[in-house]
Amino acid sequence: MSAKEGITSREQSFADWYNDLVLRAGLADYSPVRGCMVIKPHGYAVWELMQRALDDMFKATGHQNACFPLMIPKSFLSKEAQHVEGFAKECAIVTHYRLKNDPNGGGVVVDPEARLEEELILRPTSETIIWDTYRGWIQSYRDLPILVNQWANVIRWERRTRLFLRTTEFLWQEGHTAHATEVEAEEEARRMLEVYRRFAEDWLAVPVLVGLKTETEKFAGAVRTYCIEALAQDGRAIQAGTSHYLGQNFAKAFNCQFTSSEGKLEYVYATSWGVSTRLIGTLIMAHSDDKGLIAPPRLAPIQVVFVPLGRDAESREKTYAVADDLAKKLGRTLWSGPELSPARYEVPELEHPMGLPIRTKVDKREKESPGFKFNDWELKGACIRIEIGPKDLESESCMMAIRDTGEKVSVPLGEILERIPGELDAMQRRLYAKAQEFQKAQTRRVDSWEEFEKAFEGEGGAGLVLAHWDGTAETEAEIAELTKATIRCLTFEPDPEDLQPGTCVRSGKPSARRVIFAKAY
Amino acid sequence: MSAKEGITSREQSFADWYNDLVLRAGLADYSPVRGCMVIKPHGYAVWELMQRALDDMFKATGHQNACFPLMIPKSFLSKEAQHVEGFAKECAIVTHYRLKNDPNGGGVVVDPEARLEEELILRPTSETIIWDTYRGWIQSYRDLPILVNQWANVIRWERRTRLFLRTTEFLWQEGHTAHATEVEAEEEARRMLEVYRRFAEDWLAVPVLVGLKTETEKFAGAVRTYCIEALAQDGRAIQAGTSHYLGQNFAKAFNCQFTSSEGKLEYVYATSWGVSTRLIGTLIMAHSDDKGLIAPPRLAPIQVVFVPLGRDAESREKTYAVADDLAKKLGRTLWSGPELSPARYEVPELEHPMGLPIRTKVDKREKESPGFKFNDWELKGACIRIEIGPKDLESESCMMAIRDTGEKVSVPLGEILERIPGELDAMQRRLYAKAQEFQKAQTRRVDSWEEFEKAFEGEGGAGLVLAHWDGTAETEAEIAELTKATIRCLTFEPDPEDLQPGTCVRSGKPSARRVIFAKAY
Repeated sequence: MSAKEGITSREQSFADWYNDLVLRAGLADYSPVRGCMVIKPHGYAVWELMQRALDDMFKATGHQNACFPLMIPKSFLSKEAQHVEGFAKECAIVTHYRLKNDPNGGGVVVDPEARLEEELILRPTSETIIWDTYRGWIQSYRDLPILVNQWANVIRWERRTRLFLRTTEFLWQEGHTAHATEVEAEEEARRMLEVYRRFAEDWLAVPVLVGLKTETEKFAGAVRTYCIEALAQDGRAIQAGTSHYLGQNFAKAFNCQFTSSEGKLEYVYATSWGVSTRLIGTLIMAHSDDKGLIAPPRLAPIQVVFVPLGRDAESREKTYAVADDLAKKLGRTLWSGPELSPARYEVPELEHPMGLPIRTKVDKREKESPGFKFNDWELKGACIRIEIGPKDLESESCMMAIRDTGEKVSVPLGEILERIPGELDAMQRRLYAKAQEFQKAQTRRVDSWEEFEKAFEGEGGAGLVLAHWDGTAETEAEIAELTKATIRCLTFEPDPEDLQPGTCVRSGKPSARRVIFAKAY
Repeated sequence: MSAKEGITSREQSFADWYNDLVLRAGLADYSPVRGCMVIKPHGYAVWELMQRALDDMFKATGHQNACFPLMIPKSFLSKEAQHVEGFAKECAIVTHYRLKNDPNGGGVVVDPEARLEEELILRPTSETIIWDTYRGWIQSYRDLPILVNQWANVIRWERRTRLFLRTTEFLWQEGHTAHATEVEAEEEARRMLEVYRRFAEDWLAVPVLVGLKTETEKFAGAVRTYCIEALAQDGRAIQAGTSHYLGQNFAKAFNCQFTSSEGKLEYVYATSWGVSTRLIGTLIMAHSDDKGLIAPPRLAPIQVVFVPLGRDAESREKTYAVADDLAKKLGRTLWSGPELSPARYEVPELEHPMGLPIRTKVDKREKESPGFKFNDWELKGACIRIEIGPKDLESESCMMAIRDTGEKVSVPLGEILERIPGELDAMQRRLYAKAQEFQKAQTRRVDSWEEFEKAFEGEGGAGLVLAHWDGTAETEAEIAELTKATIRCLTFEPDPEDLQPGTCVRSGKPSARRVIFAKAY
């Protein structure tokens, strides 16, 4: 932490900067439960805005929400062989269902007589219980497709945790769809990947790589895993969302068959796809600065904060009234933000959202100095700060400060209402453009092992490295062990040059195309 | 079940009718996990509408959402003595955090080496972990009040379960607030009770009793528990929501103190309040009939279903086009419904909501007969059904069927759009008025033990019985054991006659006022 109770600078330590920011901006807090966090109101407000935008997009693409049990019978996990092997072993296990008073007087103890016949696992993901349920819902092709999503908490017993980015319990959505054909399921997996891409770029203002995971990195139980990969300011990649084409793997494991329109009995084709509260960590790491949170306006809990000032009650009464009036009017103004990235894959037209009322706050704390309040709102990521003092009122103006640029200008009071939406639009565009430039600057081609090793030495990230790879899991594992760099994806949008064949940066064997390596969160 | 794959009638068996309806209307399903249900899309849509309306009201009364861990250290539960005694023993207990391959080849088994030092409890409610957290957030009176709500899943190991009404896992919201004074906390508990009452009456269209629980029935750890109590069509009461004034009990248990404005160190005052997916069961039991679900329009997933008909592709093309056009236009019409019950207690003015787009569906299933579709939408509780056949088009009209009254009238196509909102309003009012009448008819005074016992004999409900009680927990327990009737509440709105003193219906001792007895879900 820096001297005046601020946050560590990114240069000093990116990891400390991140933790300081999350804690001090009131986004999340540590909890007494190992690896679990408390999402505080300011952080949860970001999640609610994310949920609303994503949920609208899910519904616009034909999905409905449902809710499946948190606790999964242990035997379900071993039904899909790869799934349990690659994925589901580090989990929370419920073995008993009753406490009793400690006969020795030490509070309560587990009642040994209340042992479950079969242990229950807290869902690390819900494919197993959902496919066990779908078996009862699907008889004929007329019951298909099933397009269902669930907003839920999940538990994965992580060794190393980091607020928002990797926690033992986290919040997410998991879509689970059932289809009559491979083609339809594959289209669904790609459609939802595109929904994620648009959400990341249009809402988070974070450009992402879109592509295919390697066999090593794919979801255990999937045929193919697609992903979006974002970039933190320290040059590390962040897997921000995944969409899986699961083939008939789970349908076979749970014996889920349907009668096709030709009267044939077939196994159902499946997808699953998810994003989580990790997106909040992504947002922070992509945009924020040493003063605190910079949130893209579409996801900022407070878009416009008013700081009315005055030395005495009389003058405050006047500035408060002006601030309250402006805030009230903005609260009746709908704003939806610009569309930054046009559709790139086949998806149904998503209607541009109607917008939400502009989110404002009037800061009337009287025990804090103006300077404290300005810093506080910069820490918390209010996009625009409007300062109104008695002298401003005399000149019928106010000071407007823009969070990301730090620009501060005087604006006539009469122009504020019409100016705000344009300023929010501009900030949303600016953050996206800046992140795009950063991504470009952090991407490079590497051709020799020496150069590759050097790129990834040291603790920090190293940006995105395009290199040739021989396509084998052995080489992939060797590279990861030596450098901690993993293959983030085989991008769908490579530069034509990266599709030229070459030789593997590690093994020297032939390579069909370059893939993207990075250190990742 | 009745002959033609229908649902059991209420007269035959209210319990079977309820289960048949929930399952066949696609609201919920049983799950392979004992006592847990799957909330299906049609049921979850009701919950989403409830969440939205309640969340708006919570925010209008100054609350913010947050998220606390699902898993609570076992030792926390015994810190508030009454809490663990009366409440928290039947719960799911996590003892291990890893599975491993069965050395004998039988799938996966719990890894005995991955045993937790301290067991974790799945939250049955979150007072303990939240007050442990609040201790870190509260130092001074300036940190108060904290007005936080959480939307979450909770686990209570129930012996007897019933879809929506009592399940091992359920969804709910739990508000947890912290205050500097008793007066303020008490006001908060009453304010949120009033929010619940208005939600029940204005949205569910279910009149409720509002009042105070007895010491026996109050929440373990509370000073006072307030409740709203609804009535099912079988004469049983349903506790639909509770709001607790917790005093300083949890603050003392978790050592949460603050410095008051006078510089004194004091324990914080608390409230908590919650409603759950049980409200969906309440809605069903209050309004539905032998044909299926009757949902109040404000909470109906489908408000208007169009059933366009035609014997051949050509005529269907025309009726489909008309139905699609009307549905699209209704989807751009905001409707918010009438306000049925004026504010009765001191609450801040809640703005009447702006309304939501009217929720429509066009049923284009071609393999099903018109009769099947009509029955299906009655089962699923679409409020208004619009049938459009080729002959209707010739006369530029359609048939409009109203779900609750069964009325079916011909309406000119040109009048449909303007007529729908009024019909929805009328249905919302009608359901509330009917439920009010039912509540009144089911309420009676009983003065002798003989009459009291007789009222509660047999399996079914017995409505609401106003009787004198001597105020002791012993008599309350005795009555419950003999009749299964419990004291639902000491209502805030008694008839003046019920405030007259009398003699206890069981013990014959003096009684200050009548209280409300009922069998309850």
